[in-house]
Amino acid sequence: MAKYVYMFSEGNAGMKNLLGGKGANLAEMTGLGLPVPRGFTVTTEACTRYYDDSEAIAGDILSEIEERLARLESDIGKKFGNPDEPLLVSVRSGARASMPGMMDTILNLGLNDRVVEGLARLTANERFAYDSYRRFIQMFSDVVMEIPKSNFDKALSDAKERRGAKYDTDLTAADLKEVVAAYKKIFSDHKGFDFPQEPRQQLIEAIKAVFRSWNNDRAITYRRLNDIPGDWGTAVNVQEMVYGNMGDDSGTGVAFTRNPSTGERRIYGEFLMNAQGEDVVAGIRTPQSLDQLKQVNEAAYNQFVGIANKLEAHYKDMQDMEFTIEKGKLFMLQTRNGKRTAAAAVKIAVDLVSEGMVSKEQAILKVEPKQLDALLHPNFEPSALKAAKPVAKGLPASPGAATGKIYFEAKDAVAAFKAGEKLVVLVRAETSPEDIEGMNVAQGILTSRGGMTSHAAVVARGMGTCCVAGCSEVTISEEGKYFIDKAGRRYGEGEWISLDGSAGNVYGERLPTAESTQGEDYATFMSWTDSLRRLKVRTNADTPRDAAQAVKFGAEGIGLCRTEHMFFEEDRIAAMREMIVSKTEEQRRRALDKILPMQRKDFEGIFEAMDGMPVTIRLLDPPLHEFLPQADEDIKALAKEMGMDEGELRDIVRNLHEINPMLGNRGCRLAIIFPEIPEMQTRAIIEAAINARARGADVRPEIMIPLVGDVKELKYVKNIVKATADGVLKAAGERLDYLIGTMIEIPRAALTADEVAQEAEFFSFGTNDLTQMAYGLSRDDAGRILDEYFAKKIFEYDPTARLDRTGVGKLVEMAARLGRQARPDIHLGICGEHGGDPSSIEFCHMTGLDYVSCSPFRVPIARLAAAQAAITHGA
Amino acid sequence: MAKYVYMFSEGNAGMKNLLGGKGANLAEMTGLGLPVPRGFTVTTEACTRYYDDSEAIAGDILSEIEERLARLESDIGKKFGNPDEPLLVSVRSGARASMPGMMDTILNLGLNDRVVEGLARLTANERFAYDSYRRFIQMFSDVVMEIPKSNFDKALSDAKERRGAKYDTDLTAADLKEVVAAYKKIFSDHKGFDFPQEPRQQLIEAIKAVFRSWNNDRAITYRRLNDIPGDWGTAVNVQEMVYGNMGDDSGTGVAFTRNPSTGERRIYGEFLMNAQGEDVVAGIRTPQSLDQLKQVNEAAYNQFVGIANKLEAHYKDMQDMEFTIEKGKLFMLQTRNGKRTAAAAVKIAVDLVSEGMVSKEQAILKVEPKQLDALLHPNFEPSALKAAKPVAKGLPASPGAATGKIYFEAKDAVAAFKAGEKLVVLVRAETSPEDIEGMNVAQGILTSRGGMTSHAAVVARGMGTCCVAGCSEVTISEEGKYFIDKAGRRYGEGEWISLDGSAGNVYGERLPTAESTQGEDYATFMSWTDSLRRLKVRTNADTPRDAAQAVKFGAEGIGLCRTEHMFFEEDRIAAMREMIVSKTEEQRRRALDKILPMQRKDFEGIFEAMDGMPVTIRLLDPPLHEFLPQADEDIKALAKEMGMDEGELRDIVRNLHEINPMLGNRGCRLAIIFPEIPEMQTRAIIEAAINARARGADVRPEIMIPLVGDVKELKYVKNIVKATADGVLKAAGERLDYLIGTMIEIPRAALTADEVAQEAEFFSFGTNDLTQMAYGLSRDDAGRILDEYFAKKIFEYDPTARLDRTGVGKLVEMAARLGRQARPDIHLGICGEHGGDPSSIEFCHMTGLDYVSCSPFRVPIARLAAAQAAITHGA
Repeated sequence: MAKYVYMFSEGNAGMKNLLGGKGANLAEMTGLGLPVPRGFTVTTEACTRYYDDSEAIAGDILSEIEERLARLESDIGKKFGNPDEPLLVSVRSGARASMPGMMDTILNLGLNDRVVEGLARLTANERFAYDSYRRFIQMFSDVVMEIPKSNFDKALSDAKERRGAKYDTDLTAADLKEVVAAYKKIFSDHKGFDFPQEPRQQLIEAIKAVFRSWNNDRAITYRRLNDIPGDWGTAVNVQEMVYGNMGDDSGTGVAFTRNPSTGERRIYGEFLMNAQGEDVVAGIRTPQSLDQLKQVNEAAYNQFVGIANKLEAHYKDMQDMEFTIEKGKLFMLQTRNGKRTAAAAVKIAVDLVSEGMVSKEQAILKVEPKQLDALLHPNFEPSALKAAKPVAKGLPASPGAATGKIYFEAKDAVAAFKAGEKLVVLVRAETSPEDIEGMNVAQGILTSRGGMTSHAAVVARGMGTCCVAGCSEVTISEEGKYFIDKAGRRYGEGEWISLDGSAGNVYGERLPTAESTQGEDYATFMSWTDSLRRLKVRTNADTPRDAAQAVKFGAEGIGLCRTEHMFFEEDRIAAMREMIVSKTEEQRRRALDKILPMQRKDFEGIFEAMDGMPVTIRLLDPPLHEFLPQADEDIKALAKEMGMDEGELRDIVRNLHEINPMLGNRGCRLAIIFPEIPEMQTRAIIEAAINARARGADVRPEIMIPLVGDVKELKYVKNIVKATADGVLKAAGERLDYLIGTMIEIPRAALTADEVAQEAEFFSFGTNDLTQMAYGLSRDDAGRILDEYFAKKIFEYDPTARLDRTGVGKLVEMAARLGRQARPDIHLGICGEHGGDPSSIEFCHMTGLDYVSCSPFRVPIARLAAAQAAITHGA
Repeated sequence: MAKYVYMFSEGNAGMKNLLGGKGANLAEMTGLGLPVPRGFTVTTEACTRYYDDSEAIAGDILSEIEERLARLESDIGKKFGNPDEPLLVSVRSGARASMPGMMDTILNLGLNDRVVEGLARLTANERFAYDSYRRFIQMFSDVVMEIPKSNFDKALSDAKERRGAKYDTDLTAADLKEVVAAYKKIFSDHKGFDFPQEPRQQLIEAIKAVFRSWNNDRAITYRRLNDIPGDWGTAVNVQEMVYGNMGDDSGTGVAFTRNPSTGERRIYGEFLMNAQGEDVVAGIRTPQSLDQLKQVNEAAYNQFVGIANKLEAHYKDMQDMEFTIEKGKLFMLQTRNGKRTAAAAVKIAVDLVSEGMVSKEQAILKVEPKQLDALLHPNFEPSALKAAKPVAKGLPASPGAATGKIYFEAKDAVAAFKAGEKLVVLVRAETSPEDIEGMNVAQGILTSRGGMTSHAAVVARGMGTCCVAGCSEVTISEEGKYFIDKAGRRYGEGEWISLDGSAGNVYGERLPTAESTQGEDYATFMSWTDSLRRLKVRTNADTPRDAAQAVKFGAEGIGLCRTEHMFFEEDRIAAMREMIVSKTEEQRRRALDKILPMQRKDFEGIFEAMDGMPVTIRLLDPPLHEFLPQADEDIKALAKEMGMDEGELRDIVRNLHEINPMLGNRGCRLAIIFPEIPEMQTRAIIEAAINARARGADVRPEIMIPLVGDVKELKYVKNIVKATADGVLKAAGERLDYLIGTMIEIPRAALTADEVAQEAEFFSFGTNDLTQMAYGLSRDDAGRILDEYFAKKIFEYDPTARLDRTGVGKLVEMAARLGRQARPDIHLGICGEHGGDPSSIEFCHMTGLDYVSCSPFRVPIARLAAAQAAITHGA
C-alpha cells in the first residue's frame, strides 16, 4: 500500500517528487541533526489522489494523517486542543519545484477559544496569545474558508482607530480580545456557523485548502511561465510552530549563502526581532542586516553561519534559508537552492567549479537557460523598475527593456528616427511585413493582438528588439494615433512609455535602462556548455548584420535564412510588387531580374559572415498578397506609383485574397506555379556563393524548399533548383557542393517522411507551422482561445512557444525515424521558434536531431539548453 | 531477368497488369484459337522503366523487341522493309484499365518509299497502297514527331481542291502520290531531316511515342477522373495489319454482346464495308447495323456471332469487340468488358446472375459505384445533350442535371421561386451559409470558386441538388447580376442555362431533363449489396426531410447532423445573432432560450425519422462570424433591425474576424468559451429524445464534440454535456442511453487517440478537416493550386474528394488502432465527404471502421462500395 504521510525523520532530500522541495529539505535537515521544528509531510501523491477523488481526502489518507499527528504529539509531548500543553502547527504547501508565494500557508493552527487561554498562561503573554489567535482566524478564514481578507483588515483598522493606535503592536491584549470577537462574528456572519473549534477539523480543512491552492489562478499562471506540469501536485507540511514574536529575544529572518544579485561569496540576509515571517514580508519595520545579528545574539549568529556553510557544502549550491529564533534558540524553517539573477547564476556556477565543489556538468545544470536573456538585452535599472507600476500586461514576446516615444505607424516611427529621435517605440494592433522598417528603428514594439509567434513576436526576437505582444489590456486606435491603458489613460503620439519584454509589462512613463554586459565568467561558462553538448546550434538570420550578430553569440551556422524578409525594404519592394502584378511569365522574369542582384548581394554578405559554416536558405515562402497593400487608399497610391489602373490592381489584390492564407498558396506551391521564382533565387544563391568564395570565404549553401506535403512537390522544385544551380556552375566553370532539402512543417510530410527523404538531403523541422496544423490552431488567432484554455486548465503551456511532445513531438519523432530509415546520413534540424526554447531543445536532443536553429539572441540559451540535455540524457 | 516483350501466344487474360487490357485479351483470344492477327506486346513494366530511365528504352528491352519482331516475321513469313513480302504493323497503346481514345495509335507502320511500291504490286491496288502510306506519314508525323496535323489536312484539302474532288476517295493513285510527296516535304521542312525510311527505327519511335502518350494531358485528366494511378504505365501492342479497306469484300466494325444503353441481351453493333477503323470514328459514311452483315457476308456474320457468344461466356461479362474483314476473312482486333450506362450495368449484373453465369459477388463487382448517381438524379435527355455544346467546364461537384433561369443572389432566387418560377439556377462566385434558402429552392447551383468540398459543393450534395463548382471559366459579377462564359457571351438575370453536375458542364441554353428511375433490378441489386457488406452506411443529414430521404436510400443511421445548418433559416438567424452579439452570459442565455425550442423541434423530427437507428448530433461547429453579415451595408441594416449601434455591431464583426478561420475559434473551442451553448444544445437533444420516445420512436442519440485536439478539451465539454443531460433526465424522471464521442479531425487528436479514447465512446473521422490540416491546404483556397498540381503531375487526384491513404490514411489507421487499444469497444466511423467516395470507403473497410456516413444521395453508392470492399478484401 502507498504511504501518503512521512515524518520529517523518515524522508530525505532525494524524495523531492514525493515530499515536495520544502518537505524533502526539512527531512534532510532533520537527518543532518539541524534544529528543525518537528513535523510531517503529506505527499504530492495524496494531492493528486485528492483531485482524482473529486477533491476529497480518502479515508486511508485521513487515518495516516491521524496516526502521524499522534506520533508528533507524543514526540513533542504536546497535544492538539489541550490548553495545558497545546500543540500548534503551521500548514505549508511545498511542490517539487519552488513556487514562491503562489500557494497558501496557515500559521498557528490548533488555536481555539480554550487553547488561546492556555497559551496565554503558558507563555505568560496574553497579548501574544490573542494576537496569534486573531492572525489564525484571519488566515484560516481567508485561505480555507474564502472569506475576503478585507473584512478582517477593516475590523482591525476599526479597532485601531477606536484605540487611537498607530501600529498593530499598539493594541493591547484586551483590544485584541475584542478583535478576536469581531473576527469570529465576521466568520459566522459569512459562513452561517461558528469558527471551528476542533483542531483536527482545522487541520484537515487546512490541508484541503493547500491542495486546492495548487490550482488557484496565480499558481496555474506561474506553472505555465515556468514549465511546471499541472499533474505534479503539492505536498503539505505540518510543522510545530515556533515563534519569532515572543519578545526581544525572539526573531525571524531569511538569508542566502551567497549574494543572489551578484553571486558574491558571502552570507547575505536580513532579520527582524520580535516578529513573525509575515511581518518581514509586509515591510512594517525595516529589517536589519544579518551581520547585526552578531550583536544581538552571537551564539545564534555563529550557529546560523555554521549551519549555512554546512548546508551549502551539503547541497553544493547557494542556499536560501529561513530561520526563527524563539527565546534565544535558533530553529531552521526552510532551506532551498536560492533564486538568483542571471549574473549571479553564472558567477556562482563558475565559482563552485573553481572551489572544487561541483563538476562543470553540475554547474551547467544550475543555470536556467532562459535567465541568460537578461545578460544579452538591456534591462531597466532595478531601482526605477521597483518604483514603477505597469499600466498593462501582455505577452513577454521578446525580452529586454525599452523606453521611447510612441508612434502608431511604421512610417512615422521611421520619420521620427531619421529626424534624430533615437528612442522610438512602435505601437500597433498587429504588425505586418510592411512594418519591417519601423520595427527595425524601434527600441521596442507593443501590439494588442497576436501571440508568442505572431509576426511582431517572431521578427522582434530575430532582431533582438524588446516586444510586448498581444496586450489586449490596451486599446489601440491606429487611425486616431493613440492608445488607452487598462486604467483608461490615453497616450498620444510622441508620449513616453517603457516596455519590459521579459515580463510582458507596459509602463506609462520613461524608465532608465542599463545596457547588458556579459563578462569573463559568462565566457568561461559558455565555453563549458560548448564542450559538453552534442546538438549544434545554428541561427535564424536573414541579413549579413543578423548573421554577424549570431556568430558573436556563438552560432555555428544558419538554420533558416528567410529570403522574403529581404524584400520589404523600401528600395526592393517595388521590384517585388512588379513581379507579383506581372501578367505573363516574361514580365515576371523581367521583374525577377531586378531582384536578382539584390538577393545575390545579401547572400554574399551572409556567406562571408558565416565563413566555413553551413547556411540554409529557404526559398520564397509567404503568400504573395503579403507584399501588396490591402487598404483601399494604399492600393490607390500604389496603382498611381506603378502607373497601373487602380481597378486592375484591386482585382489582383482581390484575386490573391485567401480565406485561410496559412493553408493557401505559399511555400513550394508558389515555386511550382511560378518556376521562374526558384530559378532566380537559386541563381542568386549560387552566384553569391561563387563570388563570396572568390573573396576567400568557405561557403556551404543548403537550399531549403518549404511547405512540402508530398515528395512529388519536393521533386518538382528540386529539379528546377538543381538544373539552375548546375547550369550556373557549369557556365562559370566552377564546382561547388551544395545540399537540397526541405522543411518538415506539414503534418503529411512528417507522416510520409520516408518518401520525402528519398529527395531531401536534410530535414529542417518547421515546428511553427507543424504545431499550427497539428493543433488546427492558427497562431494569429489563438490569443483568446489560449487565454480561455489556460484559465480553464485545458492547456498548461502555449504549444507555439514550447513544443508539444505528445502530439507534435510524435510527428517529429516519426519523421526523424522514417527519414533516417530511408536516408541514413540525412541531416536533421529544427528552425521553428521552438529551436530557442529549452524544453523543446531537450526534446530535440532526445529525438536525435543534429542541430537546433533559433534567433541570434537565443543562441546562448540554446547552447546552454543543449548542454543540459546532453548532461541529463547522455550525449 | 525480367521479360519485357511477350508474343500474343505467350500471354493470357490474367496478365492484364503486365500486358495491359488490350494485350492480355489479344493473347487470351489467340489462346482460344480465335482469328487474331499475330503480334507481340511490350509490357507496362517496359513503360515504367522507360520513365525511370529518363524517357529512354534500355538496351535489353530493345534486344527483346528485336528478337520478338524477328519471330513475328518468321511466323508470318513477311519482313520489315522487304517490298516483296512487306510486314506492316499497327502500334497501339493498352493500359491495365481501358482508357478509350486517351492514348495514341499508329497504323500501317513499316511503309516507306520502296515498300509502298511492293504493296501496290502485291495488292494490285496502287491507290490503296499510297492511301495507306499517306495515312501512315500523317499519323507518324502527328503522333510520333509532333508535327501539327493541320499541316497535313491542309495539304490534303489543297489536293482535293486542285482535283475538284469532294471525298478523299475521289483522289486517284496518282493524286495520292502527289499528296505523299507533299506530306514528306512538310515533314522535312518541320524536322530538318527526311521522313524515316527504316521500319525498325519507325517502330522504336512509335513505341516511345505510345509510352509518352501515357502522360499526355488528356490521359492524365482521364486517370484522375477515373482513379487510375499514374505509375501503372501503358503496354504497347505491335500487331500485323489487316485491312478493312481493301475493297467491297473488306470491312470493319464494333459490336457489343448486349445493348450498352439498356442492358438488353442481344448482340448490338455496327460496321462499314471498305473502311478502316478510323473511318468509322470519323463518321464520313453512316455505318450499317450489325444485323445487315448477314446479308453482306453470312459466313463472317455467323462466325462473328459465334465468337461473340464464346467471348461473353468466356469473360462472363458483356463484351465490346472490334473486328475487321479482309477480303472476306474475319479478324478479331479487340475484346474487352464493355462500358455501359448505369441502368444497363445494373440490369446486366442482375441478368448474369439469373442466367447462372456469375455469382452475386461477381455481379456486384461489375457495377461502378459512382455510376449509380445517374439512377438517383435527373439527367438530360440524351438526344438534347448530344446536340448541345458546353460553354464552360467546372468541377462536377454534385451530380444530376438542372435547367433554369439564373439568379445571382439567394434572395432573388427565393423571390423568383415564390413568384412561381419553379426552374431556378443560383449563380454565385461562392456560396456562404447565408445563401442556404436560395440553394434550397434552386434546381442547380453554379459557382466560379471553391473546390469539391467548398460550401456550395457540400451543401448541394447534401440536398441532392446539381452543382457545378469552381468554374473559373466563367466570370461572375454578382453586383452587375451577369456572368460571362469563356467565349465572352454574357448571361443576365432570368436567362436560361443548364448544368450537368455529373460532368461539370455548363450549357448556355435550356435543355430538357428526364427524371430518374430505379426499378426492380436496382432493388434486387442493392439488396445483394446489403447482404454482403460489413460496413454500416449512415447519412449526413441536418433536417427531418433529409433524414427521411436518406432512409429511403437505405441509410442505417445518421453519422453527422450539423446543428448549425438549422440556424440559417430566416426565422432562426435573428436569435442566433442575438446570441452572438450578447455582452454577458445572461444575455447570451436569454438568446439561447429562444433557440432551444427550435432545435428541440428539429431533433424530434429527426429522431422520429430515424426510428430505431443511431443519430449522431454534432455540437455547434462553425466560427460565429459566419452568422453575421460582413459587408458594410448589411451590417448597417442588421444594426437597425436589431436596434443596435452600428459602430458597436461593426466592432463585434471586426472582433470576430480571424486571419485563418479554419484554424480559429470554432468547434469545441466555442463550447469551452461559452459553456451555455453546449448546455442549451444538450438540453434540446435530450428533451427531444424524451418527446420523440413518448410518441413511440426508438431513439438512440449520440452527442459528438467537434474539433478536439487534446483529450482535456473533450473532457471539459463532455462534463458539461453529461451534467446537463443527466440533469434533464433526472428532472423528467427518465432513463435514456446516449453516447458521447468526438470527431477526429485535428491531426493531434489522431496522434493522441489513445488519450482521446479515454473520454470518447465513439470516434467519427472528420476527414475534410483532417485532410486540410494534414496537407496544410484549405479547401476554400485549393482551386488554383490543385489545377497546377494536376497539370504538373504532382497530384493525381483531389485528396479532398478521395482519401489520401499514404498520409491522411496513416493518421486514420493510427487513430483507429490507438483508440481500440485504449477502448476496445469504441465505435468508429467516418463522416467527412470521403464517406461517399468508393476508394475511400474501401480504405475504411480495410481499416476496420464500423460505418461510413455520407450525404443522402450517396448512400446507395456507399452501400455498393462497401459490398465491393467486403468481397475484394473479405468481411
